[in-house]
Amino acid sequence: MCGIVGIVAKSNVNQDLYDALTVLQHRGQDAAGIVTCDNGRLNQRKGNGLAKDVFHTRHMQRLTGNIGVGHVRYPTAGSSSPALAQPFYVNSPYGISLAHNGNLTNAEELSKEIFQTDLRHLNTDSDSEVLLNIFAHELQKLGKLAPSAEDVFTAVSGVHARCRGGYGAIAMVANYGIVGFRDPNGIRPMVFGSRESEAGTEYMIASESVALDGLGFKLLRDIAPGEAVYIDMDGNLESRQCAAEAKASPCIFEHVYFARPDSIMDGVSVYKSRLRQGEKLAAKVLALRPDHDIDVVVPIPDSSRIAGQSMAHKLGVKFREGLVKNRYIGRTFIMPGQSQRKKSVKQKLNTIGLEFKDKNVMLVDDSIVRGTTCRQIIEMARDAGAAKVYFASAAPPVRYPNVYGIDMPAADELIAHGRSEQEVCDLIGADWLVYQDLDDLVASSAEGNQEITQFDCSVFNGEYITGDIDDQYLDRIAAARNDKSKSLQAETEDGAGIALHNDDAS
Amino acid sequence: MCGIVGIVAKSNVNQDLYDALTVLQHRGQDAAGIVTCDNGRLNQRKGNGLAKDVFHTRHMQRLTGNIGVGHVRYPTAGSSSPALAQPFYVNSPYGISLAHNGNLTNAEELSKEIFQTDLRHLNTDSDSEVLLNIFAHELQKLGKLAPSAEDVFTAVSGVHARCRGGYGAIAMVANYGIVGFRDPNGIRPMVFGSRESEAGTEYMIASESVALDGLGFKLLRDIAPGEAVYIDMDGNLESRQCAAEAKASPCIFEHVYFARPDSIMDGVSVYKSRLRQGEKLAAKVLALRPDHDIDVVVPIPDSSRIAGQSMAHKLGVKFREGLVKNRYIGRTFIMPGQSQRKKSVKQKLNTIGLEFKDKNVMLVDDSIVRGTTCRQIIEMARDAGAAKVYFASAAPPVRYPNVYGIDMPAADELIAHGRSEQEVCDLIGADWLVYQDLDDLVASSAEGNQEITQFDCSVFNGEYITGDIDDQYLDRIAAARNDKSKSLQAETEDGAGIALHNDDAS
Amino acid sequence: MCGIVGIVAKSNVNQDLYDALTVLQHRGQDAAGIVTCDNGRLNQRKGNGLAKDVFHTRHMQRLTGNIGVGHVRYPTAGSSSPALAQPFYVNSPYGISLAHNGNLTNAEELSKEIFQTDLRHLNTDSDSEVLLNIFAHELQKLGKLAPSAEDVFTAVSGVHARCRGGYGAIAMVANYGIVGFRDPNGIRPMVFGSRESEAGTEYMIASESVALDGLGFKLLRDIAPGEAVYIDMDGNLESRQCAAEAKASPCIFEHVYFARPDSIMDGVSVYKSRLRQGEKLAAKVLALRPDHDIDVVVPIPDSSRIAGQSMAHKLGVKFREGLVKNRYIGRTFIMPGQSQRKKSVKQKLNTIGLEFKDKNVMLVDDSIVRGTTCRQIIEMARDAGAAKVYFASAAPPVRYPNVYGIDMPAADELIAHGRSEQEVCDLIGADWLVYQDLDDLVASSAEGNQEITQFDCSVFNGEYITGDIDDQYLDRIAAARNDKSKSLQAETEDGAGIALHNDDAS
Amino acid sequence: MCGIVGIVAKSNVNQDLYDALTVLQHRGQDAAGIVTCDNGRLNQRKGNGLAKDVFHTRHMQRLTGNIGVGHVRYPTAGSSSPALAQPFYVNSPYGISLAHNGNLTNAEELSKEIFQTDLRHLNTDSDSEVLLNIFAHELQKLGKLAPSAEDVFTAVSGVHARCRGGYGAIAMVANYGIVGFRDPNGIRPMVFGSRESEAGTEYMIASESVALDGLGFKLLRDIAPGEAVYIDMDGNLESRQCAAEAKASPCIFEHVYFARPDSIMDGVSVYKSRLRQGEKLAAKVLALRPDHDIDVVVPIPDSSRIAGQSMAHKLGVKFREGLVKNRYIGRTFIMPGQSQRKKSVKQKLNTIGLEFKDKNVMLVDDSIVRGTTCRQIIEMARDAGAAKVYFASAAPPVRYPNVYGIDMPAADELIAHGRSEQEVCDLIGADWLVYQDLDDLVASSAEGNQEITQFDCSVFNGEYITGDIDDQYLDRIAAARNDKSKSLQAETEDGAGIALHNDDAS
Repeated sequence: MCGIVGIVAKSNVNQDLYDALTVLQHRGQDAAGIVTCDNGRLNQRKGNGLAKDVFHTRHMQRLTGNIGVGHVRYPTAGSSSPALAQPFYVNSPYGISLAHNGNLTNAEELSKEIFQTDLRHLNTDSDSEVLLNIFAHELQKLGKLAPSAEDVFTAVSGVHARCRGGYGAIAMVANYGIVGFRDPNGIRPMVFGSRESEAGTEYMIASESVALDGLGFKLLRDIAPGEAVYIDMDGNLESRQCAAEAKASPCIFEHVYFARPDSIMDGVSVYKSRLRQGEKLAAKVLALRPDHDIDVVVPIPDSSRIAGQSMAHKLGVKFREGLVKNRYIGRTFIMPGQSQRKKSVKQKLNTIGLEFKDKNVMLVDDSIVRGTTCRQIIEMARDAGAAKVYFASAAPPVRYPNVYGIDMPAADELIAHGRSEQEVCDLIGADWLVYQDLDDLVASSAEGNQEITQFDCSVFNGEYITGDIDDQYLDRIAAARNDKSKSLQAETEDGAGIALHNDDAS
Repeated sequence: MCGIVGIVAKSNVNQDLYDALTVLQHRGQDAAGIVTCDNGRLNQRKGNGLAKDVFHTRHMQRLTGNIGVGHVRYPTAGSSSPALAQPFYVNSPYGISLAHNGNLTNAEELSKEIFQTDLRHLNTDSDSEVLLNIFAHELQKLGKLAPSAEDVFTAVSGVHARCRGGYGAIAMVANYGIVGFRDPNGIRPMVFGSRESEAGTEYMIASESVALDGLGFKLLRDIAPGEAVYIDMDGNLESRQCAAEAKASPCIFEHVYFARPDSIMDGVSVYKSRLRQGEKLAAKVLALRPDHDIDVVVPIPDSSRIAGQSMAHKLGVKFREGLVKNRYIGRTFIMPGQSQRKKSVKQKLNTIGLEFKDKNVMLVDDSIVRGTTCRQIIEMARDAGAAKVYFASAAPPVRYPNVYGIDMPAADELIAHGRSEQEVCDLIGADWLVYQDLDDLVASSAEGNQEITQFDCSVFNGEYITGDIDDQYLDRIAAARNDKSKSLQAETEDGAGIALHNDDAS
Repeated sequence: MCGIVGIVAKSNVNQDLYDALTVLQHRGQDAAGIVTCDNGRLNQRKGNGLAKDVFHTRHMQRLTGNIGVGHVRYPTAGSSSPALAQPFYVNSPYGISLAHNGNLTNAEELSKEIFQTDLRHLNTDSDSEVLLNIFAHELQKLGKLAPSAEDVFTAVSGVHARCRGGYGAIAMVANYGIVGFRDPNGIRPMVFGSRESEAGTEYMIASESVALDGLGFKLLRDIAPGEAVYIDMDGNLESRQCAAEAKASPCIFEHVYFARPDSIMDGVSVYKSRLRQGEKLAAKVLALRPDHDIDVVVPIPDSSRIAGQSMAHKLGVKFREGLVKNRYIGRTFIMPGQSQRKKSVKQKLNTIGLEFKDKNVMLVDDSIVRGTTCRQIIEMARDAGAAKVYFASAAPPVRYPNVYGIDMPAADELIAHGRSEQEVCDLIGADWLVYQDLDDLVASSAEGNQEITQFDCSVFNGEYITGDIDDQYLDRIAAARNDKSKSLQAETEDGAGIALHNDDAS
Repeated sequence: MCGIVGIVAKSNVNQDLYDALTVLQHRGQDAAGIVTCDNGRLNQRKGNGLAKDVFHTRHMQRLTGNIGVGHVRYPTAGSSSPALAQPFYVNSPYGISLAHNGNLTNAEELSKEIFQTDLRHLNTDSDSEVLLNIFAHELQKLGKLAPSAEDVFTAVSGVHARCRGGYGAIAMVANYGIVGFRDPNGIRPMVFGSRESEAGTEYMIASESVALDGLGFKLLRDIAPGEAVYIDMDGNLESRQCAAEAKASPCIFEHVYFARPDSIMDGVSVYKSRLRQGEKLAAKVLALRPDHDIDVVVPIPDSSRIAGQSMAHKLGVKFREGLVKNRYIGRTFIMPGQSQRKKSVKQKLNTIGLEFKDKNVMLVDDSIVRGTTCRQIIEMARDAGAAKVYFASAAPPVRYPNVYGIDMPAADELIAHGRSEQEVCDLIGADWLVYQDLDDLVASSAEGNQEITQFDCSVFNGEYITGDIDDQYLDRIAAARNDKSKSLQAETEDGAGIALHNDDAS
């Protein structure tokens, strides 16, 4: 998962892009990058780490220009390439910089095409580099000295015709403008908004509406699935549906875990979705055990607090933050002659004894992925004296990998993969495990916007909306994940693996 | 405020000290440092920033040794010196490293004494350097080739005889042992605990009990006011009351804001104190307005959530997290020819419209200091459509500066200084402002441990327990604060102002 | 001026490229860069500073691959762009990295062409980026999936047809091979050589033959003016004359000052050229003043020592190193409220009193450019007690700017521009000034290789061999130099101005 | 060997100290440090690397104050401690910073004394830390609130009474003044000089007179063996003989190799010494082989050029720089799975074929230590076609280790240790080897100043002037050297091993 932003303004956009990246930082903490365009010249700064660590005054002073794009990165599943910060850049045609959020499922095939048909060299395994070169090639084919909005939309149509998967992208064509577009299923989110300045209207395109809020932009609307929105250097905005068949099918995991609660995504308040998730969980609890003996609801911080509050309220029991999160986590160093120590959950969470001692505790989390953390927390709850430890998951069992841009483990690492709910309950050691029903989860989001009739729920039901995912593909990305984790171990702590397009170093 | 820790173990203490500093990091995020002693040699690493940024593998590899002390720093009021990371070090006698939490109120007088009587050079305005040199001199006076526990206690007695203020310190005497001590009023907290290893018992002394929890140490008890606890290289622990007149008077602000909720401090659970603060606030609300029209209680994240929950529960209204905190805050860069832009609260907090629209909202914060943030949040609440905006402070009006180590503004920057509650209410623009009564605040903590009969409440009532604080002193630290903020502005972003004892650079 | 190198080997080339850059470092100390190609992927490291400071172990570990190119940079006259390290890269077609030494005199016109005809974006004012894009476009036009040696030569022919100036370049076509080529006048030098390994023959192309010597390669020959030499991934070498009209006219300033003395350049030993320069100078002295009263010849270190030795020997007077050079020069810092102090020659050179006191000293330098340093040295000689101070320049008066890649001041900064020899003598304060005659200088080099019948002597006689240099052009580069020096001053010490293609940072 | 400097001026000394360190940089390139005193506060910057790399603008801006000391470091033989930059500091008494050049031969005994008698902790094995603590203790014993010049001299006398070896030191007593002193044999050099400013006379003390020259100070004289020179804050200079028995016995190796030729050392011009060394070598050659067949004298750059010139002149043969030195040497990186490649002399030196081909060449070097480099150069000369290769050493056979501060190998690594001249000749593969006679070497220097009747020639004759060197001591330092080289290998490239007093990091 990644966060992306593009701004066309009337004065320098560096500070605004930077601020937007900090607001979107929850979508990716591995790397950050900004490219701006000033009078035909591109200025760039990218690096590993949080935005606040990547950008210093000397970088900001170079990042002049009234238009630009930014990116925060989270490594995408299925990519075995070394860590690469975005935006990426090609100089032909026009000079194009692109920031991408999502995953192309046919990247491998496209890679070959790009080289064989287009003679373009790809220097990474990143599907983002593929997406950029496809877009660049589609635009180059038109051969215009100065590309019009129409030309840009034609190129985006070409992208939709060739690319499969879930993707949102913002591309800057140097000296011409910025375009944002979403895949025909609208799996990955994207919104745009405007702000009035003395010199005229300014626009921002971003992954989430919170980026608009924080910077004084007013949310205009979501970019529709398959649609492209283009803003030229003079601030003229045009939009166009560029996909033959577009049908909204947004990723429901954004509502469960990924998005900030204060975002409005495809017309749905994420915060309200989560409140409803909690209410529906409570309803299920009451339906299953009308005479339940739950004394207290304790959320696992931070993402399940909202669902936990509404759940506790509906159940009529106390909501208490019995687990305290340590916000400052460090690493475990390997000293000479010593093997890696296991990082225990204890360093991240601490129990408040009072809230567990002799009580029947209902722990709530947003979802259960590998199950290792759950198991340790349940153990901690028992060590703290809990009489019974129940566990509720605001999402259904996660049984399948994600192929649309969320970094999820391969199937065999998922605790619920091929297991019943009771088997999971036994493995994590809970006295009772309550999973949200998928219909309820969908309803929690769908109630926020009647027009969205379906969501990508592939991690729960294995139904991949793009229709191109088979076992072979899943095996391949599982293998790639393994290779990647090996190569990451081989890297030094100084962040080797920085490659060609990346100006972070030393 | 600062966090300090010392460990005497049976194997290398570097990772444990590092982990402890990350657990104590909420007490100071400006700088971090560790000194260990290995076979008579001291190894040190200090630097500006979070522990996770200061310590890299190459530093950890050097920090060998079974005993050591660590420090995380928060700039202390009244100090005009450039930023200095601790522990500090003197080579005479024995080689002593000291980490300090608190503030000496007679540091200026002691500085002169140290030079004139002891011929010791002080290179900073830091009262921690003063404390170290006083301790060193008291130990040197005894002239022992190998200092005994008795000698160390005699030196601590000498410290108590000369120093005034609130202080907790952990000092390592190279090759001999570690001593932790607290001022005779026990204003600053300190605990110690033990852990069994195969090679014998290991000890940790730390500012808060959470540091013990996270690392598998069992809390033995608090160090008593005026007491010193000494552990020698072989792991023998001795303790001694070193002050003529000691009477517990712990800082109540730890319970309001500073300490982690899962800490047990002087026998009191901070978490329970905060729950009681919320209950007593609710009781006051009900007493003043039995027919209140509050629809929802919204905490200002993060420190007021616990009091907010119990308050909402007692009031019988919904508790909702209507304000979302951005956890990734960046800086505002000054571009050439541009003046500093004001950093607005909007970049730190965002409202969830739903929870404010047409509602009567009770905002809760732990305390009100300058009042600027409150005022902006109340404005945001109104912008989000709140019908009425009430404000509750879990602490009474803050009217006086802190001189015992909490970095609090000078009196004239405190919104409640010289103002009535109603005047503050008008200034922050609330429809109703409810302050906790001081008696209730004290009771919230005192109910946790009957033996603590008084607390340092000077910021609320202006009564400074050390008896040496007059207007002249307060004026001096107010002036020093001003000088300091000026000199900080003059520093470059690369962290100049690093001085003699500090091995952080470039 | 720059130094460039390319290697096609049978094992990793990183260490060899690095070693070659250190041997070529005298050609440029501002920046260094290496790109290697490993199994289709490019690995890059570039940065400001000496090679030894730019490349650390972690960079070298990433620079895998059996073929690669390297570059050391010296800012080229006429370029107003911020400092950019090479090699440069374009991803279309094939992925091409290019390192360039020299200067294109029609870069400005080509820039427009590139954008308008080729739709390629240039992000800098660097003529090297122009050269790379011209080469890339010429290769792309052929539209081959796999370019043959023939295709590469066709593209080089296209480059010669469009580009004017003095240029040597080494380009790597990812996964295919490396090509080195020289402009049709052979103004800038380039050689190639081979080395036998167990796995077969390995090749190096480089600016100077010393790079071959140091790494065990045997000099095969110079690349001829207009010629291209291509070595594919399998180590097959082909060469081709790619220019319609090629005629050797190498830059004589390489022999005077720039090249290392142990280089063989276009068949001429630079060392021998310099010995002959000294002999001819001596002959002129003897002709003009058969009864000269010179007591000692003192070279101005380091470049004039060789000519000084042969001159002294021929004159029959002592050769003495009366000026000692400080090899470790630091900067002058500007403290707050202080203006820049002038860096005096005294910090770079010191006199040995004994060799000046009451003697008639003949100082020798390779050439006189601005004349400021000479004047100061002559003054130092007088301060040291010299009776008479004579000055000999191994080169004729420098009266015109260089447009083929040597960073020489604009005309009005050249002390001999528009002045007679006597006027220069008076300005620098010498008792006698002897300039080499141009015919003698040419003969010093030409005697080494009868086949070279002409040299580029434009800085001495204002005759620009490419035939396209008019006053307008010279005015433009003079203005560009001024702009550049201004913008350089505006840059921070941390090396801002690093742009898009550059992975050096922080 | 190290370079040290101290300045008492009328305005900030930071730039002057920095400039002086660059002039003295030939005495040590491993680390650099400066401490200044401004209004009672010490400002410090130290780090590994050249002065130009250690000091940036932000450091210089902090290094305010009109007095200060500086140091450039070269690791001293016999020290097994991790790399430590100087000056060192103790805060008791007064705050003293000290920079040291040389080696104490009784450091180990003194270390114990310091701890047992003085209770001072030493954190390194560095004899410089010992020297500082001895001086500090001697000054502390006097117990003065404000030390007078007399007190400082008394302390220096105490140092001489307790310390053995060769040492020169400059110490700054914070807020009082700067003192420079030399051991009673004057083994290590030190001079002082003055400069007039508008505000009064300014003084500099430095290792070599060139530091004075470069900064406009006038050489007053050498500090005499055993003497101390003290300059207080007001610029009052006093000097005193502080040793009971002082007799000049300066290190002759400074004249052979270490010092800059333009230095005047104990009244002797190093340049002239080297000219005389060459003349005496020529005389020996002529005496031994009146009909020698030498065609050309070729110096091994850089240190033997002066002796080579006078030798060639006296022999009446040509002097030619047939070996070209590469001034930019890089490192050899160890790639994964690869063992360390040997760094060959070929990367440092290159031959000019012309000067060797069919000629009888006399190579000249300043001395022969291990002999490995010689052997390789002789081989290179033969590869370049030399008919015969003769070798002359301006110094006699080096047969014994140095214990007074020059980093020389242990005895068994010295090629001439226990071998005849002919055996050395055979080992290095020369056709003839001519060593300077020791009497001639001594005469070369002594002729410059009749008052110096003896020199420390211990590396040649094994006579250690301090009378305390036995085989046991030599064995111990040989073992320490081995341990050290092992521990250095274990260090990471980031310069671990930086210890307590060192503010270089990350």
